[in-house]
This record gives sequence, structure tokens and C-alpha cells, in this order.
Amino acid sequence: MLGKLTGWDETIVALATPPGIGAIGVIRVSGAAAYAVVGALFVSKDLAVQPSHTLHVGLLKEGEEALDEVVVSLFRAPRSYTGEDVIEISCHGSPYVQERVIGALLRQGARLARAGEFTQRAFLNGKLDLAQAEAVGDLIASQSAAAARTALHTIRGGFSRELRDLRERLISFSALIELELDFSQEDVEFADRTQLYHLIEEASATTAALLQSFRLGNVIRNGVSVAIVGKPNAGKSTLLNVLLNEERAIVSEIAGTTRDTIEETLNIGGILFRLIDTAGIRHHTSDVIEQLGVGRSLEKMEQADVVLYLYDVRESRSEVERVRGDLAARGKAFLLVANKVDVSFGTADVGASGVAVADATSSVAAQVRFTEEVLISAKVGRGIDVLKQRLVDLVLQGEAAGDGTIVTNARHFEALRLVNESLGTIRRGLDELLPGDLLALDIRHCLHYLGEITGEITGEERLGYIFSKFCIGK
Amino acid sequence: MLGKLTGWDETIVALATPPGIGAIGVIRVSGAAAYAVVGALFVSKDLAVQPSHTLHVGLLKEGEEALDEVVVSLFRAPRSYTGEDVIEISCHGSPYVQERVIGALLRQGARLARAGEFTQRAFLNGKLDLAQAEAVGDLIASQSAAAARTALHTIRGGFSRELRDLRERLISFSALIELELDFSQEDVEFADRTQLYHLIEEASATTAALLQSFRLGNVIRNGVSVAIVGKPNAGKSTLLNVLLNEERAIVSEIAGTTRDTIEETLNIGGILFRLIDTAGIRHHTSDVIEQLGVGRSLEKMEQADVVLYLYDVRESRSEVERVRGDLAARGKAFLLVANKVDVSFGTADVGASGVAVADATSSVAAQVRFTEEVLISAKVGRGIDVLKQRLVDLVLQGEAAGDGTIVTNARHFEALRLVNESLGTIRRGLDELLPGDLLALDIRHCLHYLGEITGEITGEERLGYIFSKFCIGK
Repeated sequence: MLGKLTGWDETIVALATPPGIGAIGVIRVSGAAAYAVVGALFVSKDLAVQPSHTLHVGLLKEGEEALDEVVVSLFRAPRSYTGEDVIEISCHGSPYVQERVIGALLRQGARLARAGEFTQRAFLNGKLDLAQAEAVGDLIASQSAAAARTALHTIRGGFSRELRDLRERLISFSALIELELDFSQEDVEFADRTQLYHLIEEASATTAALLQSFRLGNVIRNGVSVAIVGKPNAGKSTLLNVLLNEERAIVSEIAGTTRDTIEETLNIGGILFRLIDTAGIRHHTSDVIEQLGVGRSLEKMEQADVVLYLYDVRESRSEVERVRGDLAARGKAFLLVANKVDVSFGTADVGASGVAVADATSSVAAQVRFTEEVLISAKVGRGIDVLKQRLVDLVLQGEAAGDGTIVTNARHFEALRLVNESLGTIRRGLDELLPGDLLALDIRHCLHYLGEITGEITGEERLGYIFSKFCIGK
Repeated sequence: MLGKLTGWDETIVALATPPGIGAIGVIRVSGAAAYAVVGALFVSKDLAVQPSHTLHVGLLKEGEEALDEVVVSLFRAPRSYTGEDVIEISCHGSPYVQERVIGALLRQGARLARAGEFTQRAFLNGKLDLAQAEAVGDLIASQSAAAARTALHTIRGGFSRELRDLRERLISFSALIELELDFSQEDVEFADRTQLYHLIEEASATTAALLQSFRLGNVIRNGVSVAIVGKPNAGKSTLLNVLLNEERAIVSEIAGTTRDTIEETLNIGGILFRLIDTAGIRHHTSDVIEQLGVGRSLEKMEQADVVLYLYDVRESRSEVERVRGDLAARGKAFLLVANKVDVSFGTADVGASGVAVADATSSVAAQVRFTEEVLISAKVGRGIDVLKQRLVDLVLQGEAAGDGTIVTNARHFEALRLVNESLGTIRRGLDELLPGDLLALDIRHCLHYLGEITGEITGEERLGYIFSKFCIGK
């Protein structure tokens, strides 16, 4: 089914750990000659006679030159990551030493692995399907609990199982319908049309839910960009600092201090937020650099998933309403955040107890009519937890980032969209009492798109592209 | 003998691979509770009943939350790096995932390892002596074949064996002399003074050779800094580029282009050279920044191990001689390098064959009276190999960076200097027919200094300091 990929019978080698100085570094070797290649350098014992899943301490030597004292991990095919013979060499964590060891392995006949080639081999040897293999890349890149959980769910086969179940049931219907064609003279129906209809209904619901999950999946995978905008001195940098608990932005009393946009990531409730601090929005400025800053600010606001408009609680209500109208007109997800509730109600009200602020807050509540408004004091750190929760709510919109399958991959989304479309075609065909041969064709289309996700049906070029986005050594 | 170090019965954990994204990352756990701590999270099988030196694939879970699919490497005490129970967890190479796994291990009762603590435990459990442990750090930091070879020689016990032999022989003499003291009435000599004299002579020769090797050892460990100096437009940046085979420095025809000093490393014949390109030396300049550059240039020249003075071959001979005199007076190791031999003899002479240049070179040879002069053309890449060889010769000065022990560690050098001094005292004592009790005292001093190197005699505070220079996870 799959074309044989160039050079994939060769034995490959790569550094599997990040480059740089550490206590140890791991070099991975995979292929039919893995034992011969490593065995030629490992002088302490004969690796060829050692059982799989064992560890051996010894010396690597090339000719008379000692390269390193190492620990080798042996994995015999097919009980390895790639499904081939694999040896992992745990070296001392010197980039120089690792380079020498890799050089020696190359001279023994291994070649450097391409990006993603270990995982590609795992896929070609049936150790992982394509969706699982892609999730390996997602797990490595994950920066939040939700992203890691979703990727791990897919690696462990959760997503693939759902698709496989659907595919198998469709295949059995397809076989029955095609059997009918052999008996077309007799006008029999082996495939129960009502059962098929139910299956298609069910499958449509499943794929629709998976498609629906992509919005959240995208958020989980890439994080949510939040542009923090507001007038000069509304306290944007202070808010950013308090959210991050560190002095990243330069805070000053001079309006318009923040010229460059600053981007920081923040993990709230397992979701990654990318906070973008921007230059204050104001309309008249003589400072050219400041103007550039403002330009970038507006642009960032356009690109952001969420706009957080920060304003001084003492600001005129009409101005706030104008901004709200503007954001709503742009169709942006937004939060209005009233800052400086401490100043507004005097310093006596804040600091010692939360109650004073709570009272103060409720006295302002009369002015505040919308749930998308939050009252805070960035300076004294009040209302920040509520703000964080509102951000999470805004993203989840009632969806839970739970244990189910969440589609995070744009390629999967696109294929699922086609699956869903072809399910619709099948259903219409059933409604229109389409003959078996045409129905069978529609089912085959649907099976094709399903197969693209897990890699049962994927061209060599496409595969090469998918794996090339991995890091070397994976 | 060794004071018990605080908390060293606790189970420790650290990331052993460099931080960052990679295919895999390895988390190391060591201590009596290693199996309990990891076993509490590893749900796929019971690690406690598995044999040492085996590998196990499985899932790490904390409560209901899956953390990662991992491979664990089991090492049972005392057959491990630290001599304790050790488990290495090979995770997916996401910093986020690794952080979660480490967090879960901490919640199971492990604590974060201090820098060098794994190696320190190996030392305390007698798996490595102090000289070997220090060489682990050197190997990790090594950037050249010579540095890696020297460190590996020490890790494998080469240096320690030499010291141990000497120490054991001294101890047996010391015992015999102290035995004499018990029979002091009878005026017997158990310890053969002639044999002792020979031993001391031999030991002195060995330690003198080791002390001698430190100059080379220092070069091997830290590399050799080479300041490339010369007048503006002598071709310094071009030379640097040709040595490095890349466009690192900005080359231009405008004199004085190179304002910042640029430092690049270059491996020649297994020795690391740190090449420092400096602003051109000239005495009158109106540009303040250029002046700062020149100031740094002179400073760098002072600090460098070797000064490479580059000049245009057409420059006046008296000027070159003035520089030679100046460098010689400063007691600097130096090379005079005449550049632009291509321009000097017309472009027709160079390029196609090496012979034309060789002829040209010999016709200049009359002017060149010293072996520390090299003729090159940085622009066309002639004479560069000769220049490289001269640099290596200058460093080795006849010493070979061979297989023997080379002292690279300043602490060892200092202790060896004291060993050598005390050997001198013993010899003088023998010459002066010193009574046995005084001789025994001198031998004990010598043994003390020897023991300091391998760690038989080293205070807790000192040990803490030595290991704190390691990276975390080692």
C-alpha cells in the first residue's frame, strides 16, 4: 500500500536529546545494522548476544581512541520505538563527545537521520498510525496541561480508535452493498438500509463533535493571544506584571512608556495565554517612535483572539461604551477591565482586608451592567483571580477540556470536514434510494478521507512533508 | 573519615539532559526510595520486582492524570552511577512534560538534586575518587579531542592509579619506619633507607613530570587565546574568516571596520584555539568608538596566550622589527605573519599553482630571518596550513599531547606542588640522616597532599565547593 521510502532500510543515527551541555546526552541508532554499527565501537562486551530491554555499561572505542564511557539501552525488533533494532547510547553530556561518537557511528556505516525519521519508521512499521505519530510532535511541543493531555490521548490511540471503529463499520456495510451488486439480478438487499442510516447519523454526530472540538483544539495547541489595550497609563504594564508575577515590562509613571509590544505566555487553568502588551492607544502624538508603537498596537489587536480593554475606573462611561460598541462591531471576543479600583475608593479601602474592596466593588457595580466587565486593581493585585477565570470562561465557552478526543491538527480537521461532507452525501443517497453501486462509491470516498487521517491512505510525498516538521532524533 | 553530608540519604531527582525541546529528555532519580517514588507513578508494571539493568515501557500517571508514556532504565545499588538505586526516566522531549513529571516525583517525596549531587554521591559511595569525579565535569565541558581524551583517561582511573601506587609504597615505608620507633631501643632499621631514597627520587620525577604537564593541561582544558593584532587593513578579519571558513567578521576596504573584538574558537590538531580579532592598532584616531576598540585591542593582547602580529608584506622592515622587539620584551609567545604575498608579487603569481607562490615566497625569504615569521595570503588562502602548524608547534613546544596523564586541574596542580615539596623535604631528611620519627612525619605530610587529590583526605566544605561547580543532573 505504501510506497517504499528512499533509504529506509539503512541504519540511522541522531542525537535524541536537546543540543547543549548536560549531564548526559542520548544518541539513538535504528535499523537492521544497529547492533553491528554500535557493536563495532562498544568494546566491553558482545552486544549481539545480549537480550532485548537490557542496559550495558562499557567503553566506546574507535581504533585505539577511547571515545566515551557509556550506557547502552538495547531494544530488539519489533519491540522498539521504530519497530526495528534500536540502540540508545547514553553518553557524557558534552556536545563535543557526542559529535565524536556520532562521527564514529557514521564511519561504521550508519547515516544521519532526517527530521522525524525515527517516528516515520515507527509509522511505516505499524507501531503508530499517522494521527498518533503527529501527536508525538504535538506532545513534544506542548506547553500546557491541556495540550499535553490531548496529545497523549491521541498517542495512546484514543482518536485513532474512534476513527477505526467508524471505518470498520463503514467497510462492512460497503462489503455488503458490493455483494449486492454481484446479485443485482435478484434484487436482494444484504445491507440493511435502516441500520446503515443509523450508522451514518451516528457517524455524522461523531465527526461534527470532532470538528466542533477543533476550535478548542486550536486554542489548546497554539494558546490564546490576548491583546491588552487601553489608553496610556491605564496600567497595562502593571497588569501584565501582576499576571506574570515578575518585572518583565518597564513600568513608569510617564504616559506612553511601553513602545515595543511585549509578548509573554501565561498558563491559566491548563490553557496557554499569550499576553500582548501594547503601546497605549491615543490619537495625537508627536513622537514618531511612539506612533509606530501605536500602529503595532492596533495591528496586534486585529490579530489577537481576545482583546482585553483596560481602563481607569474613573474614566467616562460613554468612552467605555464607545469602545465596547467598537469591539462588538469588529466581532472580537473581548473583556472590559476597569482598573485602579484602589485609587477610586481611596487607599484606606484596600490592602488590609478583601472586604473593603468587595464593598467598594459592589458600590461601583451599579455602573457596571455587563458580565464581560471585571473590576480590578493591578497595583494591589485585587480582582486578578476573577479576571483569570473570565479569560478561561471566554475560551472554553462552556466546552470542557476534558478527557475526550479533541482535534488539534489542521490536517485532521480538513480530512474530517471531507468525511462529514461525504457522510452527508451518503445520507442524501439513502434518502433518494440511490442504487447500491453509487452508494458504494460514496462510502468509498468517505473511507478514503478517514484513511487519510490515520495514514492508511497517504501518499509518500505527503508523508515526507508531515515527518519533515519533526525534530531530528525523533 | 568523611563527614556525613546533609540530606544525602534523601532520594534526589533532576533532569539529566540539556533543557529545551528534543526527541527525548532523561530524568534521573537516585536514592533508597527511587523505586518507591517512581513506582508510585509508573502504572504499567511493578518495578520493584524487576531485575537491575533492564528497560521497561509504560505509562506515568499521577492520580487520574496521565503524565507521559516513558521508558524507565533500572539500576540497582550498588551497580549504578551513584552506587544507590537509580532509575532513569526517558520522557518525551517537551520541557513542559518533563516539568510535570519532575513535579509529580517531588510530590512522591523526592527532592531536587543540587548541582553535582549525583556525582558527589558516586564519590561518597566509592564509585569514583575525587580526581575522577572532577574529570567527569571536564569531559562534559570538553571541546577538543585532547581535552576529551585527557578527561576520559582520568575518569578511567589513569591518574588515580599513578597516585595510588605512589601512595601505597609510601604508606608501606611509613609503616616500617613507625615500626622502628617501637623498637627504638634496639636501633634497628626495618625500612631500607636506600630503597626509600630510590622511591623518593622516582616519585619526585613522576610528580615533576605531572607538574610540567600542567602547562599543556591548561591549554588542553581551556584552549589557547590568540590575539590577532596589526595595523588597520592588514587583513585581520580576512585571516580570521579564512581560518574559520565562514563570514563571521565584517570585512570591508575601509580601514578600521572592526570595532568590537570578535572571539571565535577553532580546533587545530585537537587543540582549541580562541581567536580574538581586534581593532587595528594605530596611534592617531579621531573616532571615539574606534579609540575604545583600540583600547580593547591592547588589553586583549595583554591577556592573550599568543599574539599573532599580522602585517602587510610590503610594510617597512624596521616597523616589523620594532614590533618583534616590543613583543619579545613583553615576554609574549608570538608569531609574525606577513600577509598579502599575492599582492606583493602580482596576481599572476598566485592562484593556479602553488609553485608560483612558493617561488615568490623564497624570493622574500631573504628578508625573513626568523622562524617565527610566516608568509601568507589570507585573501587567496595560501600559507594557512603552515600558519596553523606553527600555532600548534608554539603551544606544544615539543611536548606531545599523548596518552599519558596530563594534569588539567588547578587544584590537583597545587596539591602536586605540595607533594613535590614534601618529597624534597623527605629526601633532605634522608641526606641528613634524620631520625625515623621526623622522617615518618614528613612522609605523612606527603601522603596527606596525595590524598587530597583523590579525595581520601578532603573536608566536607571543600567537597561541597568542588561539586557545586557541576551542572544539575550530574
